[in-house]
Amino acid sequence: MDVPQYIEANRERFFADLKEWLAIPSISGDPAHHGDVRRSAEWFAAHLRDIGFPTVEVWETAGLPAVFAEWPAADPAAPSVVVYGHHDVQPVEPLGEWETDPFTPLEKGDRLIGRGTSDDKGQVFFHTLGVQANMAASGAPAPPVTVKLLVEGEEESGSLHFPELLRTHRDRLACDAIVISDTSMWSEDVPSMCTGMRGLTEAEVSLYGPESDLHSGSFGGAVPNPLHAMAALLAALHDADGRVTLPGFYDDVLPLTGEERELFARLPFDEAEWLRTAGGSRAPYGEKGFTTLERVWARPTAEINGMWGGHTGPGGKTIVPREAHAKISFRLVAGQDPAKVQESFRTWVQRNTPPGIRADIVTGGAVRACFSPIGSASVQAAKRAMEKAFGQEVLFTREGGSGPEADLADILEAPLVFVGLGLDSDRIHAPNEKAEMPLLLKGAEAAAYLWDEFATALRTA
Amino acid sequence: MDVPQYIEANRERFFADLKEWLAIPSISGDPAHHGDVRRSAEWFAAHLRDIGFPTVEVWETAGLPAVFAEWPAADPAAPSVVVYGHHDVQPVEPLGEWETDPFTPLEKGDRLIGRGTSDDKGQVFFHTLGVQANMAASGAPAPPVTVKLLVEGEEESGSLHFPELLRTHRDRLACDAIVISDTSMWSEDVPSMCTGMRGLTEAEVSLYGPESDLHSGSFGGAVPNPLHAMAALLAALHDADGRVTLPGFYDDVLPLTGEERELFARLPFDEAEWLRTAGGSRAPYGEKGFTTLERVWARPTAEINGMWGGHTGPGGKTIVPREAHAKISFRLVAGQDPAKVQESFRTWVQRNTPPGIRADIVTGGAVRACFSPIGSASVQAAKRAMEKAFGQEVLFTREGGSGPEADLADILEAPLVFVGLGLDSDRIHAPNEKAEMPLLLKGAEAAAYLWDEFATALRTA
Ligand SMILES: [Zn+2]
Ligand SMILES: [Zn+2]
Repeated sequence: MDVPQYIEANRERFFADLKEWLAIPSISGDPAHHGDVRRSAEWFAAHLRDIGFPTVEVWETAGLPAVFAEWPAADPAAPSVVVYGHHDVQPVEPLGEWETDPFTPLEKGDRLIGRGTSDDKGQVFFHTLGVQANMAASGAPAPPVTVKLLVEGEEESGSLHFPELLRTHRDRLACDAIVISDTSMWSEDVPSMCTGMRGLTEAEVSLYGPESDLHSGSFGGAVPNPLHAMAALLAALHDADGRVTLPGFYDDVLPLTGEERELFARLPFDEAEWLRTAGGSRAPYGEKGFTTLERVWARPTAEINGMWGGHTGPGGKTIVPREAHAKISFRLVAGQDPAKVQESFRTWVQRNTPPGIRADIVTGGAVRACFSPIGSASVQAAKRAMEKAFGQEVLFTREGGSGPEADLADILEAPLVFVGLGLDSDRIHAPNEKAEMPLLLKGAEAAAYLWDEFATALRTA
Repeated sequence: MDVPQYIEANRERFFADLKEWLAIPSISGDPAHHGDVRRSAEWFAAHLRDIGFPTVEVWETAGLPAVFAEWPAADPAAPSVVVYGHHDVQPVEPLGEWETDPFTPLEKGDRLIGRGTSDDKGQVFFHTLGVQANMAASGAPAPPVTVKLLVEGEEESGSLHFPELLRTHRDRLACDAIVISDTSMWSEDVPSMCTGMRGLTEAEVSLYGPESDLHSGSFGGAVPNPLHAMAALLAALHDADGRVTLPGFYDDVLPLTGEERELFARLPFDEAEWLRTAGGSRAPYGEKGFTTLERVWARPTAEINGMWGGHTGPGGKTIVPREAHAKISFRLVAGQDPAKVQESFRTWVQRNTPPGIRADIVTGGAVRACFSPIGSASVQAAKRAMEKAFGQEVLFTREGGSGPEADLADILEAPLVFVGLGLDSDRIHAPNEKAEMPLLLKGAEAAAYLWDEFATALRTA
C-alpha cells in the first residue's frame, strides 16, 4: 500500500476524527473557554495515543496546556524533527455571519467549514495521517526520523508562555529541523512554501512642549508646537524613495537573492486584486526598487500605527498643545537585530527633536525575523516532498507578519521549514473559516513523504 | 473743577457703584446665569440714566441683551464715537482658588478683586466717570463729540449675535471712530495702546487610505499609510525658516513699518519671563527675521491644534490605519483675506495628498485681522489723551488674538482705537481677577480727555 492509497483508504476516519476535535471550542482568548482548551489538549493527546505514538504528554504552562508527542525512529542516529502547530482557535464573533455553528463542522462540496479547520487544527491533524501513511507505505514500525509533535494552546492569544515552555523542555525538543504547519500557500493551483516571516519591534514617542495648552492667539507662532515637531519628525522617517532614514537601518538586512526575486516574480500576482484585499487601498506604495510582494515579505518598514495630541474632539480649539504622541512599529527582516533598531530609533528621535521640545521614547516588543534560505537542505527536502504530493513545481513565498516561530528557531537552534497548506481564502480569524478537504489530504501526503526526504537530507547535511 | 479734581471728588461713589454692578454674576457662558446677564444690562442702563445719558436702551438679541446709550454733542456737526465693551463675564471655577467670593468685590490695597473688575465691567465703567468729568471740566451740558456706548452681553461666549445686532442698528451706531475698551497695556509703568489684533481661520483635514485598518504584517510597507501622509503634509506646512509654505500666504500681508518695529523694540520685553508665562516653554521659536513680539502680534501663522488617527489607546496595535485627522488654525494679520487663505489651503492639501490617499478639508471661522495705523488721526488723538492722563509717553502694542472687533470695524465702517487699561497680571478668565483701582481712574481721566481730542482731530480729519 503506497501513501496515496493509505490516505484514500483512511480519509473518512480522518475527517470524522478531525470533526470531533473541531467540536471542542478551544478559544484561548476567552477565559470562559479555557476549560475547552484543556479538553482540546486532552482529546488530541488521547487521539495520538490511539494511533500509536509511543510518548504522548500534556505539557502544562503558566497558561494553557500544549501537547507533546514523540515517535522515535528505529535508528538512534536518525535525525529528529519537531512539528509545530496549535490547537487553540480564534473567537467566533460575529456569530450571525456563520453558515453553520462554528463548532459543528459542515461539509459543503470540498470544503469543511468551521472554526479551526484551517487555523490550525486541520493542519496539525494532517500530520497524524501523514506519519501513519509513511509507516504503512514503508511497512516499518516507526518513521525514518524521530517525529516530535509540539502543539501549543495559546497561539491565538499571543503565545505568552511558549518561550518558557521551550526553555523548560529544550532537551526533549532537541532536533535537526522544525516543521511549521500554520501558514498558507499562494493558492490551490500554485503550491508554495513560506521561507521567512518578518520580525517586529515597537516604540512610542512623546514630545512635550509647554506645561499646559497655550492660547494660540497669545502664543501661536512664537513657541515650539509639539504637533509640528511630531509631524516633522515622522515625515523625516522616510525619504522620497520610501526608504527608512534611520542611520544604519539597512546595514544588516540580508538582501533578497536573485533566485528568490525570480521565484517571487513567477507567482501569478494580481495587483488590483491585492489592493482590493488591502482594504480597497487605492494605490500601491513603498520602497523604491521593490515589488509589492518584496515589500511586504522581505523589506523592513517603519509604520506609524497611531498618532495623537492637542484637541481631537468636535469643533475648533485654537491652542498650542502641550504634547504629541505616536506609536511606531518596525517590521524587520532577516539579519536585523530588534535591539539595535530600537537603539538607533532612540538616538535618531533625540537628535531630531527641535530646541524647546523634550522627547520621551519607550520601546517594546522584539521579535527577530525568521528565515530559511531556499537552498538549505531542509527546505529542499520539504520542497521535494511537496512536489511529490502535488505533482507540480512548488514556488516560494514569505509572510509579512510573525508568530512564535522565531522563538522556536532561537531556543531550539534548528532551521525552520514551513509546510503549511492553508489558503488566503480560508477566512482564518473570520466567520466561515474553512479548509479545502483535498488540500488537507495533500498535506497528509506531503507530510508522509517529508520524513523520508528528511531522513536522507538531514543525515547527509 | 478740572478733570483730575472731578475724578478725585467722585472716586468713592464710582467704586461703590461699580461694586454694585460687579455683584451681579453675569456669566454668559452658563445658562443658569442668563437671568443675571439680563439683570446686569438693566442695572447698567438704570445707572446710565441716573448719571444723565439722554438716551439709554436695552437692546435685545436672539441671545443676551446689550446696552446702548447716547449722549449727543451740542453741535450737530460734531463727530460721533462708539465706545465698545461688554458687561458679561467669564465663569468663576475653580471657586476654591478665589480669595473672596468672585461676586463680592474685595479691596486689597490698590486692588479690587472680583470677576469682571478688569474684563470688562471696570473698563466700561470708567467711561461713565470719564464723560461726567469731561462735562464737569468744560462746564458744558454735553460732551464735545456724540458719545455712543455699546456694551454687549455675549462677548465671553463668542459674540454670536453681535454682528446681527450691529447690522440691525447700523444707522444709530453711525460714527467716525470706535473706541475699544477691552484690552490691556504693556504694564502699569509702561502705558500703551493696542493697534491691531490678529484674525483667524480654521480647517480640519481628514486623510483616508484603506477602508479599514490593515494588519501591518500583511500590508505594512506596501500601501500608503494616512498617518505618514498627514505627517508629511503638516511637516511641509512650514519651511526651515518657520515660514508658512502655502502659495501666496504672505502676498497680502501688510508689512510692519520701521516705526512700529522701533516702538515695539522699546517695550521692556523680558524673553525669559515671557517663556515662563508661555507655559514654561523651553525656547522661543518662529518665523526667521522677526522678534517674539512681532511674531505673536504682527505675523500670520499656521498652527496644528490637534492631530489624531490609528491606535491611540494603551499598548501596541500593528496596523496601517484607515484614516488620519488634523485641526489647523491660521492667525491672520492686516491685509489677509480669510477666505483666500482657506481656498489656498484647500488647493495646497489636495496637491500635496499622495496617490492612494483621499483628502477631505472642512474650513470654518473667518475673522479678519483688525488694525489701526499708528499715524492715523484717531490713534494720535487717543495717544494724546492717554499721555495727558499718564504724564508720560504712550507706546504701542498689538494683540495676538481677536474678539468681535473686526465686525465692528467692518459693519460700522469706522476706524478702531484701542483705549484699554487692563494689565496682563489682571488674571482675567482666571481666579482672583483684579483691577488696579488707580488705573481705572486713569482710564476715566483718559476717557475725559479723549472727547476733546476727538472733537478736534476727527473734525479736521
Ligand atoms: Zn494559526
Ligand atoms: Zn473682555
